Amino acid sequence: MATKAKIGVLGASGYTGSELVRMLLRHPRAEIVLLTAERSAGKAMRDVFPQFSPFALPQLVAIEGLDWAKAGLDVAFCALPHATTQKVLKELLAQAPVTKVVDLSADFRLHDTGAYAKWYGHEHHAPELQKEAVYGLCEIHRREIRRARLVANPGCYTSCAQLPLLPLIKAKAIDLDEIVVDAKSGMTGAGRAAKEAMLFSEVSEGFHAYGVGHHRHMAELDQEFSLAAGREVIVTFTPHLVPMNRGILSTIYVRGKRGRTAEELHAILLKFYAKEPFVHVLPFGETPQTRHVRGSNMTFIGVAKDRVAGRAIVVSALDNLVKGASGQAIQNMNLMLGWPETMGLEQVALFP
Amino acid sequence: MATKAKIGVLGASGYTGSELVRMLLRHPRAEIVLLTAERSAGKAMRDVFPQFSPFALPQLVAIEGLDWAKAGLDVAFCALPHATTQKVLKELLAQAPVTKVVDLSADFRLHDTGAYAKWYGHEHHAPELQKEAVYGLCEIHRREIRRARLVANPGCYTSCAQLPLLPLIKAKAIDLDEIVVDAKSGMTGAGRAAKEAMLFSEVSEGFHAYGVGHHRHMAELDQEFSLAAGREVIVTFTPHLVPMNRGILSTIYVRGKRGRTAEELHAILLKFYAKEPFVHVLPFGETPQTRHVRGSNMTFIGVAKDRVAGRAIVVSALDNLVKGASGQAIQNMNLMLGWPETMGLEQVALFP
Amino acid sequence: MATKAKIGVLGASGYTGSELVRMLLRHPRAEIVLLTAERSAGKAMRDVFPQFSPFALPQLVAIEGLDWAKAGLDVAFCALPHATTQKVLKELLAQAPVTKVVDLSADFRLHDTGAYAKWYGHEHHAPELQKEAVYGLCEIHRREIRRARLVANPGCYTSCAQLPLLPLIKAKAIDLDEIVVDAKSGMTGAGRAAKEAMLFSEVSEGFHAYGVGHHRHMAELDQEFSLAAGREVIVTFTPHLVPMNRGILSTIYVRGKRGRTAEELHAILLKFYAKEPFVHVLPFGETPQTRHVRGSNMTFIGVAKDRVAGRAIVVSALDNLVKGASGQAIQNMNLMLGWPETMGLEQVALFP
Amino acid sequence: MATKAKIGVLGASGYTGSELVRMLLRHPRAEIVLLTAERSAGKAMRDVFPQFSPFALPQLVAIEGLDWAKAGLDVAFCALPHATTQKVLKELLAQAPVTKVVDLSADFRLHDTGAYAKWYGHEHHAPELQKEAVYGLCEIHRREIRRARLVANPGCYTSCAQLPLLPLIKAKAIDLDEIVVDAKSGMTGAGRAAKEAMLFSEVSEGFHAYGVGHHRHMAELDQEFSLAAGREVIVTFTPHLVPMNRGILSTIYVRGKRGRTAEELHAILLKFYAKEPFVHVLPFGETPQTRHVRGSNMTFIGVAKDRVAGRAIVVSALDNLVKGASGQAIQNMNLMLGWPETMGLEQVALFP
Repeated sequence: MATKAKIGVLGASGYTGSELVRMLLRHPRAEIVLLTAERSAGKAMRDVFPQFSPFALPQLVAIEGLDWAKAGLDVAFCALPHATTQKVLKELLAQAPVTKVVDLSADFRLHDTGAYAKWYGHEHHAPELQKEAVYGLCEIHRREIRRARLVANPGCYTSCAQLPLLPLIKAKAIDLDEIVVDAKSGMTGAGRAAKEAMLFSEVSEGFHAYGVGHHRHMAELDQEFSLAAGREVIVTFTPHLVPMNRGILSTIYVRGKRGRTAEELHAILLKFYAKEPFVHVLPFGETPQTRHVRGSNMTFIGVAKDRVAGRAIVVSALDNLVKGASGQAIQNMNLMLGWPETMGLEQVALFP
Repeated sequence: MATKAKIGVLGASGYTGSELVRMLLRHPRAEIVLLTAERSAGKAMRDVFPQFSPFALPQLVAIEGLDWAKAGLDVAFCALPHATTQKVLKELLAQAPVTKVVDLSADFRLHDTGAYAKWYGHEHHAPELQKEAVYGLCEIHRREIRRARLVANPGCYTSCAQLPLLPLIKAKAIDLDEIVVDAKSGMTGAGRAAKEAMLFSEVSEGFHAYGVGHHRHMAELDQEFSLAAGREVIVTFTPHLVPMNRGILSTIYVRGKRGRTAEELHAILLKFYAKEPFVHVLPFGETPQTRHVRGSNMTFIGVAKDRVAGRAIVVSALDNLVKGASGQAIQNMNLMLGWPETMGLEQVALFP
Repeated sequence: MATKAKIGVLGASGYTGSELVRMLLRHPRAEIVLLTAERSAGKAMRDVFPQFSPFALPQLVAIEGLDWAKAGLDVAFCALPHATTQKVLKELLAQAPVTKVVDLSADFRLHDTGAYAKWYGHEHHAPELQKEAVYGLCEIHRREIRRARLVANPGCYTSCAQLPLLPLIKAKAIDLDEIVVDAKSGMTGAGRAAKEAMLFSEVSEGFHAYGVGHHRHMAELDQEFSLAAGREVIVTFTPHLVPMNRGILSTIYVRGKRGRTAEELHAILLKFYAKEPFVHVLPFGETPQTRHVRGSNMTFIGVAKDRVAGRAIVVSALDNLVKGASGQAIQNMNLMLGWPETMGLEQVALFP
Repeated sequence: MATKAKIGVLGASGYTGSELVRMLLRHPRAEIVLLTAERSAGKAMRDVFPQFSPFALPQLVAIEGLDWAKAGLDVAFCALPHATTQKVLKELLAQAPVTKVVDLSADFRLHDTGAYAKWYGHEHHAPELQKEAVYGLCEIHRREIRRARLVANPGCYTSCAQLPLLPLIKAKAIDLDEIVVDAKSGMTGAGRAAKEAMLFSEVSEGFHAYGVGHHRHMAELDQEFSLAAGREVIVTFTPHLVPMNRGILSTIYVRGKRGRTAEELHAILLKFYAKEPFVHVLPFGETPQTRHVRGSNMTFIGVAKDRVAGRAIVVSALDNLVKGASGQAIQNMNLMLGWPETMGLEQVALFP
């Protein structure tokens, strides 16, 4: 590969697509050579995202009819709707087997294609590819990601829940049958499709839970938590929508195992993430705010004592479009290409 | 009393004060004769709340030096800061023993003055009055409220948690040791005092928990839940701030006792509130949004099955300034004066 | 007519429709007997607007196939998309000539069907009805409204501009060739149709102008201003979108004619609206905020001196869904039925 | 100077202070060695701005007692309240005459100390320094800034009005007596001081004008416009507050001189800014949105034809904390130190 990697963003007209472009424009070794968007094919990127007006970017094209070998991508970021993704990537990797892929959809996150079929209501379209796909939560699976050709970028809700919980589960420090994750997300997590329920006037000045008891993100949580625990773990998980653009905050209720105190849980997290550039554990008793990670690739984690004896409250916050999606994806690319992991991701949070 | 009751609002320059005025202006039997505000004494109400510009209202006065006997109030709503309240009401009821009082502060909510001292850091200033104070959650304590002279209006967070939980606790339908209340409030709940942390730019576009593990509202919850259960009940409670003006949503995690299913919990609530004008239980599986009760005195409650066996998720929503404060206070007044309970409180929610 | 008027709301699943229902539910002489909604036909009103969950309301039905004679409406509020409206009302008034109609669309606002065709790109579908239609800005055309069968309810932007400007134009107090109306609206003005540009994430945390130089509301302004002036008046008008739900604020730049000062312009407005229940002129130098009229039928107007000699700045504020649409429509109904003009419209603004 | 410049931020606990720190942390040649904050002296920067928690930064100190010679600053950014600034900088430059200063307050913007006294109500405290102060709008005064020791960074409102208007005034293309600037700002422009009027609940869900007819920014506009025109120019200017954090949008109404069309005005701006990295002129007829420059140092300008013959509408948008304050200040520093003007300022806008 030349000094700069040739990069394609498939699905550039959505929010994770524009976030990728925003960060890649300032990544010292990235060169954006392909942008796709089905309905907006033929338009300039500035027509769908005016903030890019001052920048030179390739015109949006449709995927249909692209010659992937000719495209010569070093890296493809795939931010397409689920199910479509499996078909597109199957074709892409057949034609251009040296291209590395970071997929931001849910299509390759579940190792068990049976579980996929159950949660998504149709057969997996690329079961062979699924076998090589690596689950891309960098802080946990760094080693496999470095060697991967196809990385399944984690979901935003699940990243926000996994980063604080996995070290505690791995350390066998918490009761696995009493975990409650109460999650709150900004509106960009719902994507850019025009739906009545996402209109400003439906969403502002209000708050609500949704998908109570049956959200698709649960499959991903089940897989990763069970893997870490070495047994089946099923957590209670409730997502809510906050009238804000960016950010996820998870309030997590746990019970320490064998008398582990909240302070001990905090110490485990502090140690686990001591050298991580993108996970920051706050002093004991402090809890994070989503606004303080906005636009950055950071996750902030806090731990406080519950007044109910033996229980602790763990709170984590990240920007769903950055560490919860596109920043994480670039972090994966950096690992896959052997570059410094923080390259292009050092932007400080934008507050206020 | 004449056809109309003479009403005073003590602390009219805060948000619960203005809400009282908003509703009392349209209450067919209310006549506002006194408005107090310490720092704004001498001003017109329109100077502190321009929305009242078209209406005739008494000028704001200071409490200091008021002659309560001469004031001749039938009802005093007290929306003063805590601790001050105890002193003012002691004097008021000494001078004007026939005045009925609805207090919106936390000063008379705890029956146990020792608990008060512990949570608020100072001795109770009116322990004698405390003895007669009735806790004013109308749907639960209606009978005592009708006979009361001094009613302690419940807190907004606690009302939102009590209305869904008390019937379940009374019915012995849920495990008392595993209740988690994850509560989210709009910003008016924090009052109108000028604090950096409440500035628009500090609050908008973000979400966070606060007082994790040690919020004062817990004392009130402990009291009422323990009373209903006939034993000590301590729940986990975490408040959060939502970038919106009005509304509280509580996501409550419970475990059915002796195999009670989520559907059975729903049935208990449906029956309990069947005839209540201000508590509406949604069909099973639906959960409420704060925006749909905005500006109204309604509480909406929903129940859904958790995917963790044996557990249910109960969600309640109310407007913190109405059913969580001033609407509840007027409902108490209506009961105390023997008027129809819904008088002046029938405004439909303002959405969007 | 019986004590209560039988009322139909055509187009009840949009925001002006729900506002009508909200207010009519509390109008002492209104009985809602018909609610229509094309795509949601067959649903309960609570399915499209959960805030109505506690109320008994007719099921939503489609217009197609309704027998208007049998429907027996005393009043029909028509909140349908433009063009459709002309066809529906032609049929309705043919079948049920005694029904009185308040139309909230733009379909009957322009007396000149040629102007309509020019601005809306198609022939008027009911030119005969247009002849009897009365332009329904109550404070200006009260007399004709009282006798009307078909009232064209004014637009929200245009109401907010007309109320402050018409008295000044009628009094020949301002230069007609230098009027600039810089208008800002909340998002509900854009309706409830699912469009990408109206998504929360596209709209929050930002501000912009739109339709610069060519907004359809201009035709209505031209007509009414020219009528009042007795000559053609064309104003500069720029609409903007504010990340809030409700409210329009117009900042209007005028030059006093023949030396009229800002104070004199203020005096003209003060006198003109002295007895109006829904237009409130603030003391000289004070200017209004949209939040202080939210949810109410009030318009607030302020006048300040510009530092450029001879010029004044007039600012007006109203709630686009109430005085700018549904409240104004009910005010029209009250006039048409000979009822007190303020009936059902006395709700005080909801702030905060 | 070494490779990196030693930088001090005076007034680091406000929003322009934190913006400076945010950008300087990623500026390749900046080293932050001093942060001051009066009330927060002794605290860590993370205590007042938790987003900086993961970064090493100097502790906040008070200005009182600092030895400026010893501090050895290459550059001081001064983000202090007005009036204080004049005293502090007089002392700083007396003790450390080689330090270069970019002042973000209004204290050195007016060349005429008499005008300063008139608008700010007190004598100028450093008239000698005023003589050397250069007004720091880089695109206009680049040459003088390069040689300056003390630069007065322009105000946010005035930058947003000057960038579109100055080229038109210089080109004698518009009528100087009919300019109307209707400006709308996000809340961070009001600073971080705890004031009731800036509370979330006072500000969200509403819109209003303020300082109508007499805003202090006018003095700065008068000076720069008159200078460019070679005669006195007084514009009409009305500021408004938008419920959003960042962004200013100015809607500017002008009349072309001697038949200049809107298209010709657009061409003048397009040519004037053709090579500027931070001012982007949109295609004719398009107008900008504040959200598309959020967090970036860009200004977007659009021009559209008004339907009133001979008039045009010019709309400009910038981020008040970046191009309107701290980004502009760093751009000034880059010029003063002979560095590439765009260094450390290339961040792409954060939307959504």
